[in-house]
Amino acid sequence: MTNPSPAQINLKYLQQLDQQDPLAKKRDEFILPENTVYLDGNSLGAMPKVAAERSQHVLSQQWSQDLIKSWNSHGWIDLPAKVGEKIAQLTGAAAGQVICCDSTSVNLFKVLSSAMLLQQANNAERTVVLSQAGNFPTDLYMVEGLASLLGKQNCSLKLIDDSDNDLALEQAIADPELAAMTAVLMLTQVDFRSGRLLNMHRLTALAQAKGIIVIWDLAHSAGALPIALDACNVDFAVGCGYKYFNGGPGAPAFIYAAQRHHHKLLQPLTGWMGHKSPFTFDKHYQKAQGIEQFLTGTPAIISMSALDAALDVFNDVDMTLLRQKSLQLSNCFHQLVQQHECLQSLQLLTPANEAERGSQLAYQHEDAYALCQALIKQGVIADFRAPNILRLGFTPLYLRFIDMWTSVEVLADIVRSKEYIKAEYKLKHKVT
Amino acid sequence: MTNPSPAQINLKYLQQLDQQDPLAKKRDEFILPENTVYLDGNSLGAMPKVAAERSQHVLSQQWSQDLIKSWNSHGWIDLPAKVGEKIAQLTGAAAGQVICCDSTSVNLFKVLSSAMLLQQANNAERTVVLSQAGNFPTDLYMVEGLASLLGKQNCSLKLIDDSDNDLALEQAIADPELAAMTAVLMLTQVDFRSGRLLNMHRLTALAQAKGIIVIWDLAHSAGALPIALDACNVDFAVGCGYKYFNGGPGAPAFIYAAQRHHHKLLQPLTGWMGHKSPFTFDKHYQKAQGIEQFLTGTPAIISMSALDAALDVFNDVDMTLLRQKSLQLSNCFHQLVQQHECLQSLQLLTPANEAERGSQLAYQHEDAYALCQALIKQGVIADFRAPNILRLGFTPLYLRFIDMWTSVEVLADIVRSKEYIKAEYKLKHKVT
Repeated sequence: MTNPSPAQINLKYLQQLDQQDPLAKKRDEFILPENTVYLDGNSLGAMPKVAAERSQHVLSQQWSQDLIKSWNSHGWIDLPAKVGEKIAQLTGAAAGQVICCDSTSVNLFKVLSSAMLLQQANNAERTVVLSQAGNFPTDLYMVEGLASLLGKQNCSLKLIDDSDNDLALEQAIADPELAAMTAVLMLTQVDFRSGRLLNMHRLTALAQAKGIIVIWDLAHSAGALPIALDACNVDFAVGCGYKYFNGGPGAPAFIYAAQRHHHKLLQPLTGWMGHKSPFTFDKHYQKAQGIEQFLTGTPAIISMSALDAALDVFNDVDMTLLRQKSLQLSNCFHQLVQQHECLQSLQLLTPANEAERGSQLAYQHEDAYALCQALIKQGVIADFRAPNILRLGFTPLYLRFIDMWTSVEVLADIVRSKEYIKAEYKLKHKVT
Repeated sequence: MTNPSPAQINLKYLQQLDQQDPLAKKRDEFILPENTVYLDGNSLGAMPKVAAERSQHVLSQQWSQDLIKSWNSHGWIDLPAKVGEKIAQLTGAAAGQVICCDSTSVNLFKVLSSAMLLQQANNAERTVVLSQAGNFPTDLYMVEGLASLLGKQNCSLKLIDDSDNDLALEQAIADPELAAMTAVLMLTQVDFRSGRLLNMHRLTALAQAKGIIVIWDLAHSAGALPIALDACNVDFAVGCGYKYFNGGPGAPAFIYAAQRHHHKLLQPLTGWMGHKSPFTFDKHYQKAQGIEQFLTGTPAIISMSALDAALDVFNDVDMTLLRQKSLQLSNCFHQLVQQHECLQSLQLLTPANEAERGSQLAYQHEDAYALCQALIKQGVIADFRAPNILRLGFTPLYLRFIDMWTSVEVLADIVRSKEYIKAEYKLKHKVT
C-alpha cells in the first residue's frame, strides 16, 4: 500500500517525506503544545483551531446572548443529525444512517439491545453475543449489563481469543452449534492494545450468512482509515468522537444503523429526543422513523458543537491519502526502532502486515510503564497499556515524519541512559 | 413564607425590594443579553461568568496544551464525583450519594432499572411503575423502553392525574391492590407545565410504607428551592444540569442513590467508568462500591466542566433566601397581572398556595402561543407549552423585582394593542 523505504532511513529522508506530504498543511489547523511529540491522539485527539473558535461562539453568543432561542436559531436541535452526517461521510455510510449522541458505552447498549430484540422477534433460540476476548472492556461490560435485564438465559457472552489473526473468529462463526446460538457478533475493528485491524468485510459476511447480526465498534478506526460500512453491509456500528475525530475530551459518540433495519427496530433508551415529534409532548412514545430513533436525552451542546467544528478539518482530506500517511508514519517509526540496537528489546505486538494494522503500534517491553513515563517527561506523549505494552498512536493530520525521528531518538536515549529505571518511573503509580 | 405585599404594588415598591434583596449582587456573576427579561431560566439557565472562564481554560490549556495528561492533572477523572458533591449539597444529600453523568433520560433508565431489579430480587409480583399522567414525557417513555427489555408482563406504567393536588396520588398509594403490584413510584417534584410542587416527604413516606421504591425527578426543582433528599428518605433521584443550575445547554445530568442501597444495586448500563477499577481493564465487570457504580462511559468534559464552574455561583447562596426571593418574584408578577384589567383573561394554572408552587407560573390563555411569541419579540423571553400555556420561570440569582414590572407592562401593552393577533404569531410555526 505504501512505497517501500530505503534500507536505512535518516532525518534527511524524513524531512523529504514531510516536504512531499500532501497532508502536511493540515497541522496548521491544530493548536499543539510546543516541544512535544503527541503520540496519543488515539486516546484524545489534539485541538483543532475551529473547535476552539466554535466553542467560543457557543459560549459568548449562542448560550449567553441568544439563550433558549439558540435551539432553533443556531441549530442546536439539528446538531446530532448534522454531526452524524459528517461522520457518515467519513465511515462509508449513505445519508440518514448515523447520529451523534451519548457515549460509546451507552450507544453500545442501544445497538446491542436493538439487535437482541430483533433476534428475539425472529428466533428466540439465539442468545449468545460473540466477541473478542481482548475487546475493550466496556464493550464486554455492556453485554453483562444487558443480560441483567434480559436474563442470563437470554443473553450471554462468548469470547474468542483473536490476538493473532481473524482465524479463530472465523472458526467460531463456522461452528454450526455456536453459530446457531449466536444472536450478535460484536467486534472492535482495531484492537485497542495491539492495533490489529480486523477484516470487516469478510467477518460481517461470514456471520450474516449464519443469521448473525453484526455490530462494529469503530473507536480506534473511525477517522484513522477508510471505512466502508454500507459496502460491508454492516448492521450496526458505534464509535468515538474524541480520538481520531479530535472532538475534545469526552466528546459525544455516534451510532450507525443500516437503513434496512430502521422500520422494525426498538432501542430501549426511549427518551424524548428519539420521539417522532418531541415537542408535542405525547404521553406515549412513538419512535422517530429514521436514525433519530437512537436519540435519548438532551444532547450536551457545548461538547457536541466542538466535535461538529472539529469534523470540518476532514472536509478536504482524502481518507486514502490519510491512510497512506498513517501507515508510512508507523513504518518509519518501526524502521527507526529497528535501526537502534539498544531498542531490540522492544517486541512489536502489532501485525507487520499493513493490511492488518490500524493507526498505532504496540510494543511489549518488561519496563513498558517506566519507558512510557520517561518518554512523557521528555515531551514524547506515549501511552501504556497493562501489563507491558507501550502504545504509540499515529495521527496523520498533525504528525510530521520528523516527529518519528525525534521520538525514536528520545526513546533510544532513555533506553541507553537507563534513565527509565529510576525508582520514580516504576509501576507503583496510578495507571492512567 | 414571604412577607405580604401592599394591596397595590408599583415600580417604586419593586425598586425598594431590589435594594433590600440580599441576592441582588448575584446578578453581576452572569452575562446576560441587554434589554431582555429572561423568564426561561427553567428551560436553559443563563451563563455564569465563571462557566465561560472555565470553558476557556479547558480549551486553551487543558485540552490543547496538556492533552491526555489532563485526566489526572486537571482532575477530569474525578469530575463526575466532584460535580456530584456540589449538587449533593444543594439537594440535601450527604456525601457519596450524588454523581454527575449522562442525560436525565439515560439516568432515569439507570435508576428505574435498579429499582425494578431490587424489587425483582425481593418480590417478583411487583411490576407497576406508578407516575403522574402529566409527568414530563421522557420520564414515561423511559418506562416503556425498559418494559421492552423486561417484558410488558414485568413492567407497566400506571398513570394518575394529579393536576389539582397530591390527593389522587395518595389515594392510589392507599389502594391495597394497586400498592401491592407497584414496584416504583416515579414522580417529578415540580410539574413542568403547571409548576405545582409535590409533597416529597409525605408521598415518599406513604409509598415506602407499602414497600414501594420512590424515584424523584428534580428537573424543575433542583437549584430552585431547598430539597431534602436524605431527610425525606428518598430512594433515588435524577435531575438536570442546564436549568436552575445554569450548567449550559445540554449540561450533564445527575443521579442520587441513597447510600443504604449501594451494596445491593445493579444498574445495567455497566460501562467502564462504573467499574471499581476502570484502568485495570478487567474482562469482567465489577461495580464500584459507591455512587460511581452509576457511571457508564467517558464523561463529556467540556460540558461537565462548565457545569462544575456554574455550581460555584451557589457557594454563598442560602437556599432558604433563594426560595423566598423566588416566591416573592412570582407573587409580585401575579399581583401585577391582577392589577391590569386587560390581563384578566389569563387564568393562573399554578397553585396560589406558596407551599404548592415551584419557581414558575403558568397561565392558560387561548392565544398563549401568540402572546409568547409577541413577548419574545419585545425582549421578554417566556415559554409556551401546548396547548394553551404561557410559562414564566423565576430565577432568583439573576432576576430583579423591577423585571417583574417590565415584563407585565410589556405583556399588558401587547394584549391592549392586540398586537399578538397578527397572523405571524399564530400557531402555525414550529413549537419550541
